[in-house]
Amino acid sequence: MAETIYLKAMTVRDHTDIDMIKKDIKMGMILIVRVGPMAQRDLQGLRKLVDELYAAARTEGADIARLGEERILVTPAIVQIWKPQYDLK
Amino acid sequence: MAETIYLKAMTVRDHTDIDMIKKDIKMGMILIVRVGPMAQRDLQGLRKLVDELYAAARTEGADIARLGEERILVTPAIVQIWKPQYDLK
Repeated sequence: MAETIYLKAMTVRDHTDIDMIKKDIKMGMILIVRVGPMAQRDLQGLRKLVDELYAAARTEGADIARLGEERILVTPAIVQIWKPQYDLK
Repeated sequence: MAETIYLKAMTVRDHTDIDMIKKDIKMGMILIVRVGPMAQRDLQGLRKLVDELYAAARTEGADIARLGEERILVTPAIVQIWKPQYDLK
């Protein structure tokens, strides 16, 4: 059996949260990132954060998908997201 | 490295979905179960389904937590849910 994998759910507040997220991705955590509240406050900043999130996921070989309107899912290489359709409902 | 772990997001429609969910838990999948739509249609049936879901998770040594208002998260023993507070936001 491999070592424990951690799953962390969090809400992003502003662009500075990207550093913690990148660290968590690098550590191989499963992340459920809630972006809804920031979308209402700072859509421009959120777009930048999401671009960096996708880039970081790609660099680490992580899988990534939207989860409904509010959340983004990031998983380390060992965890594969089951995608019956592109966006998860 | 251990074998791949699958993460599956799904929406429950009615009580018959519990069989598929139990099978997925037994297979060691990570599940994100969206219960919101059923809550509006059949709250009684949903309560029964959620009770069975918690019982099945306990039997398999899975971890379980709410994810916002709409979703329930179930993870196999190898995946631990990071819980800064009881309910994840």
